[in-house]
Amino acid sequence: MSDKYSVIGKSVPKMDGRVKVTGQAKYTGDLKFPNMLVGKILTSPHAHARIISIDTSEAEKLPGVKAVITHKDVPSLKYGISPARWDENIFCIDKVRFVGDKVAAIAAVDEETVYKALKLIKVEYEVLPAVFDPEEAIKEGAPQIHDEYPRNINTEIHQNFGDVEKAFAEAHHVRTDRFVGNRTYQCPIEPHSAISIWEGGKLTVYSSTQSPHYFQYYIAREFGLKMGDVRVIKTYVGGGFGGKLEPTGLEFCGAVLSKITGRPVKMFYDRHEMFAHNRGRHKQIMEITTGVDKNGKILGVHANFIMDGGAYTSLGIATAYYAGAMLTLTYDFVNYKFDMIRTYTNLPACGAQRGHGAPQPRYAFECHLDNVATDLGIDPIELRKVNARQPNTITPNEFKVNSCELAECISKAKEISGWQQKKGKLGKGRGIGIAVGSFVSGAGYPIYRTNLPHASAIIKVHEDGSAATLYTGATDIGQGSDTVLCQMAAEAMGFRYENMKIVAADTETTPHDFGAYASRQTLMSGSAVKQAGEEVKKQVLELAAEMMEVEVSDLDCRDSAIFVKSDSEITKPFGEVAREFFVRKGPLVGKGVYAPPKLGGKFKGAPVGTSPAYSFAAQISEVQIDEETGEIDVQEVWDVHDCGMVINPSLLHGQVHGALFMGMGESIWEQVLFDDQGKILNPNLGEYRMPTAMDMPKVTSALVESYEPAGPWGVKEVGEGATIPTMGCYANAIYDAMGIRVNSLPLTYEKVWRALKEKREKEKVSVGV
Amino acid sequence: MSDKYSVIGKSVPKMDGRVKVTGQAKYTGDLKFPNMLVGKILTSPHAHARIISIDTSEAEKLPGVKAVITHKDVPSLKYGISPARWDENIFCIDKVRFVGDKVAAIAAVDEETVYKALKLIKVEYEVLPAVFDPEEAIKEGAPQIHDEYPRNINTEIHQNFGDVEKAFAEAHHVRTDRFVGNRTYQCPIEPHSAISIWEGGKLTVYSSTQSPHYFQYYIAREFGLKMGDVRVIKTYVGGGFGGKLEPTGLEFCGAVLSKITGRPVKMFYDRHEMFAHNRGRHKQIMEITTGVDKNGKILGVHANFIMDGGAYTSLGIATAYYAGAMLTLTYDFVNYKFDMIRTYTNLPACGAQRGHGAPQPRYAFECHLDNVATDLGIDPIELRKVNARQPNTITPNEFKVNSCELAECISKAKEISGWQQKKGKLGKGRGIGIAVGSFVSGAGYPIYRTNLPHASAIIKVHEDGSAATLYTGATDIGQGSDTVLCQMAAEAMGFRYENMKIVAADTETTPHDFGAYASRQTLMSGSAVKQAGEEVKKQVLELAAEMMEVEVSDLDCRDSAIFVKSDSEITKPFGEVAREFFVRKGPLVGKGVYAPPKLGGKFKGAPVGTSPAYSFAAQISEVQIDEETGEIDVQEVWDVHDCGMVINPSLLHGQVHGALFMGMGESIWEQVLFDDQGKILNPNLGEYRMPTAMDMPKVTSALVESYEPAGPWGVKEVGEGATIPTMGCYANAIYDAMGIRVNSLPLTYEKVWRALKEKREKEKVSVGV
Repeated sequence: MSDKYSVIGKSVPKMDGRVKVTGQAKYTGDLKFPNMLVGKILTSPHAHARIISIDTSEAEKLPGVKAVITHKDVPSLKYGISPARWDENIFCIDKVRFVGDKVAAIAAVDEETVYKALKLIKVEYEVLPAVFDPEEAIKEGAPQIHDEYPRNINTEIHQNFGDVEKAFAEAHHVRTDRFVGNRTYQCPIEPHSAISIWEGGKLTVYSSTQSPHYFQYYIAREFGLKMGDVRVIKTYVGGGFGGKLEPTGLEFCGAVLSKITGRPVKMFYDRHEMFAHNRGRHKQIMEITTGVDKNGKILGVHANFIMDGGAYTSLGIATAYYAGAMLTLTYDFVNYKFDMIRTYTNLPACGAQRGHGAPQPRYAFECHLDNVATDLGIDPIELRKVNARQPNTITPNEFKVNSCELAECISKAKEISGWQQKKGKLGKGRGIGIAVGSFVSGAGYPIYRTNLPHASAIIKVHEDGSAATLYTGATDIGQGSDTVLCQMAAEAMGFRYENMKIVAADTETTPHDFGAYASRQTLMSGSAVKQAGEEVKKQVLELAAEMMEVEVSDLDCRDSAIFVKSDSEITKPFGEVAREFFVRKGPLVGKGVYAPPKLGGKFKGAPVGTSPAYSFAAQISEVQIDEETGEIDVQEVWDVHDCGMVINPSLLHGQVHGALFMGMGESIWEQVLFDDQGKILNPNLGEYRMPTAMDMPKVTSALVESYEPAGPWGVKEVGEGATIPTMGCYANAIYDAMGIRVNSLPLTYEKVWRALKEKREKEKVSVGV
Repeated sequence: MSDKYSVIGKSVPKMDGRVKVTGQAKYTGDLKFPNMLVGKILTSPHAHARIISIDTSEAEKLPGVKAVITHKDVPSLKYGISPARWDENIFCIDKVRFVGDKVAAIAAVDEETVYKALKLIKVEYEVLPAVFDPEEAIKEGAPQIHDEYPRNINTEIHQNFGDVEKAFAEAHHVRTDRFVGNRTYQCPIEPHSAISIWEGGKLTVYSSTQSPHYFQYYIAREFGLKMGDVRVIKTYVGGGFGGKLEPTGLEFCGAVLSKITGRPVKMFYDRHEMFAHNRGRHKQIMEITTGVDKNGKILGVHANFIMDGGAYTSLGIATAYYAGAMLTLTYDFVNYKFDMIRTYTNLPACGAQRGHGAPQPRYAFECHLDNVATDLGIDPIELRKVNARQPNTITPNEFKVNSCELAECISKAKEISGWQQKKGKLGKGRGIGIAVGSFVSGAGYPIYRTNLPHASAIIKVHEDGSAATLYTGATDIGQGSDTVLCQMAAEAMGFRYENMKIVAADTETTPHDFGAYASRQTLMSGSAVKQAGEEVKKQVLELAAEMMEVEVSDLDCRDSAIFVKSDSEITKPFGEVAREFFVRKGPLVGKGVYAPPKLGGKFKGAPVGTSPAYSFAAQISEVQIDEETGEIDVQEVWDVHDCGMVINPSLLHGQVHGALFMGMGESIWEQVLFDDQGKILNPNLGEYRMPTAMDMPKVTSALVESYEPAGPWGVKEVGEGATIPTMGCYANAIYDAMGIRVNSLPLTYEKVWRALKEKREKEKVSVGV
């Protein structure tokens, strides 16, 4: 009993590992119900068009078709996950706003019939001029997408902290750069699917969701049901990355089709439809100006951004705020100005993707700072160390940072990457680059019902003491939260992890939790779980004290063994006391609840809120460029993370690997492309180029230990934080390898090749002169 | 708010009615898992034989066969649901003891393969002499079935209360009758099935079970697993009637086959195999002697019984005790002697069937008393009224009876049946008969882990207050306990029934409860549920008092509305307070637990234990006999029940209808028949003649209100009690119609015809003389 902890801090196996690798795990798409129908949605072929008429009569006549619905058959209440901008309808009423907008839906006895029936619906459109570029969209005279939003401005933010103009005036050097991000898509391996069963005035939905409780709220609201009459059950989920946080047409249309037919209705998006539904990464156009003193100390920053939101709001308001808000976390400066316009365009709506609004601005800022370092002749690492945020500080936008080992992350990354030996000394076409990042550990304000606690948990010990079940609304979508939360429960109870069970994420059987987003579960859900476990332990030790005739204060429990602290040879099995507890007092249950501290600041009232804690990371990558072809070969990458106490090192490193993988894709290859009519050109995994395992570089995932006072046992997040520096770190290494900067994502081979060609031509011209 | 109760006492719809009638409900047989194998058991073709050799090599070679197991591959630990007589092995080791005894099992990829493979196993037997008759079995020199049990005596009971010999000596009239019961089978509409998934040292079993917690205990014990490593999940169950209380070869073989193959294994009994597995009603041979005074007051009773237990114990020890113990409940006498031998025979094992050991002895006693009444020239009803038990009395075998309205039940049955106008005045071939009965409301001692509470419950209110979930290990097997327990939860909480949800009977997610047997759930599980609901209500009212600024003692809650008792216009919705509770204090949870009072008596330590409460009933039936064919046509039947407070009248009447239906089958048609080699002749629903809806007489189900102090809100049982008088009541009516008594069950048309023929012949002879 020498280790401080017996369960946490260890790489125990994943709770669901075995059922997943053996194919036992049932995803929503695997479920079947008697008499189940298949539903599909008819979508718009035009990016912007007025609906003149919809004729469903031929489709209705097709044998096997059980229901055909349009906007006339569904509530007209607008929905959306951002209450400040409810701008979507289940079906378009007056016009369609992007290629893929929802027009009608059909339920039929099988897939073949439903696809055949879709083709029989006749929709007459009057095609309208469309706009696809965010900068074009806000110009006077551009096509108006939503009547309520002039100049297609969905969200506009103008914030000013300190005095940026004064800082620039006093600066030794002021520089402005402009970067352009890319529209990417999460591409979870499991497509969205939902099975809706509406019977007896109650609706049950099996769904591939990141948050059953969010789904429950929004579905109940749309149909005017009490929340208790809507049950949302999360099955196993094959990834979400932000794209499965909001209910989709699958849930809304499925509910209506089930209500009309009286039968269960399964709906799913195929890969093409997933791309059209989208809710992936916003493309941001980012102009950043920074003033520094002669040592590189940042005096002021102005971020002036515009983002393409697509046709609807989705989570975009939060995205817009996050884009600016999280720029202030890593470096210590007081003067900050942030301007942002999120525009509507006639493209699929963008939403939250791993890292939410932060990765592209961070990419821009980190590239921009490398440019500043070059201007000043300072090593990029030195520039970052001069400015690195210290613990227990407050950002200009009043984010309260407790633990922060960013400086140490940078130093360690420098050391393990061999930066000193490599920077400026690598051969032709080879480069090394650094970037840093930071991310929230949960949002201080949820999107709805803002006065609710964010997480709660119940633990019930089985009556013979042999096992305990954790009931949580937190959602494991592949990241391993079931495992981490069971480790926390076991640690808090003094129980063996091997004997933990979990019931997770079913609005009817598990207590409220907002689910998987904003990297909130380890800290927030974990806090509730710890409290529940401690309540169990307290009750067990009180009874054990009676049974063992010792003072309760002299008892502790670990790994299911209760022992006398002053003489650890005197022990009693947890199970024996738990069983006796049941005999004497009934069920042994512990409860926990978590609400974040009320942290105000300038962002008070803004949708993003503030977080109880922030993770920090530094990443360095080394790349090789083929100057003939532009091919980018990422050789190696080092991530050094400050994520507080680590509950499960294996899962943590898994998160880092995944983030580096996704970040590499977004940096070099990934981009959703459209033709001039707004139609996606590459809506499939063949043409939308994600990295494969073969593309992965050598990865070193390292840690700097810290203790976060706001988190249970000192934890913070890692799931999204590791994506934040990635694009900047690759871009800076590529810049280092090329000696010239490509200012837009993705940094494709073609762009590299063109840039190098242009550079060579310029050099020739200059030599020629 | 004038009614005393807002939820209980009302015929609310069944929780699961809709999913069952629409075919949505999933029974174990409906479930599918990836890579699932099908398992089947090879059984013995001989009633008694030594196993010389088993050759499985050909079966193993068949493509698609994944495992073949015999006794060499499984634990040799004996099991059985009666700990005092563990006498079964997963597979027979030395010899087989009935046609259907388990010899080997196979798992294969599909049914076709597994059936083909079964035929390839070669078993060499040495056939032994067998014994099928219980009276033959106990004779010296009879074939010995189990070495440990000489003379094939499985259980022997000899009890003496008071002084029966003295009572008989002092009696005005003493009479002895002998009756022979029938071996019947429960025939639940859903065959037994189980899916076993053994992975990572843990076993999950989906099963058609009356008691997941019993199954968990016995399966864990057999395989040396911790209980927490065995999860038993009850799916929807299509009836049990006692036959699904103990785990079967399906669970034991399935577990081993899954462990060996690493794949889920589904096993099921077909209708034939259900009959062979049996565990149905014991055939009892019953000799009863009663001494009465000249008014018919019973002075003493001697019951001398022998029962055919079949090849194994099953629940037979309890059956044997119940057979004698429950005879004392209905009539007030002090001198009682009970002798019972339960024998082993080479037939399928008998167990507990609705009413357990009580219906046949009750049939014998009620027929016998009618004979006594005839002897004395007293009306059968008058005889019963003279002797009827009064409330707050103790039986000779020290069963403590609280509420008891038997006398009133008899009076009411007499009145509504028109007994006075009919008895002795019905035409030729028509008769009317009465019988009474009583049954336990739960057994005082469970079969295992006797110091545990019997039931526990947890209620969690959803965080928005719109619904509440009851977690219970009580099992709804069709009788409607989910509905009744949710009504009780809602009543105790002051909540609306419509907003109740239930999670029932999964050892991993619900608290301990012994399950559905001995008519225990309404009283025992209901007590735990009431306590849990009251704990929720207390917490809600305390917070409401704060919020409303009134004394908590001045608040009450009903139908989800909290109101000030002194001014019921001042109200607050339950949901609002529940939500605020979550905000301030976290999950709103209530817990309840129930252990029966320790009631001793002479039966202390005997397996049957004593019950906290007893139901009472009187039944009258009117029948028409076709004297030419012997056909019995039950015209009408009246049941008057004292089952305490009624929670759901519709469900109660449903139980009565079902009991009268089953009792009619057992009285007139049903009997498992064997050839002279011990092979069942009628193991299917075509040849085993259960009644159909077309056979049902007109039924009147009436109540006498009572309040049972041992039950929550005064409840007692009805599920089994209604079967107790049934056979006697039909038999007495048939006797009344025929003027001659057939002393064995079933009272088939053939027996009636033969008896009438014999009677006519005797009359002819006597007229001739």
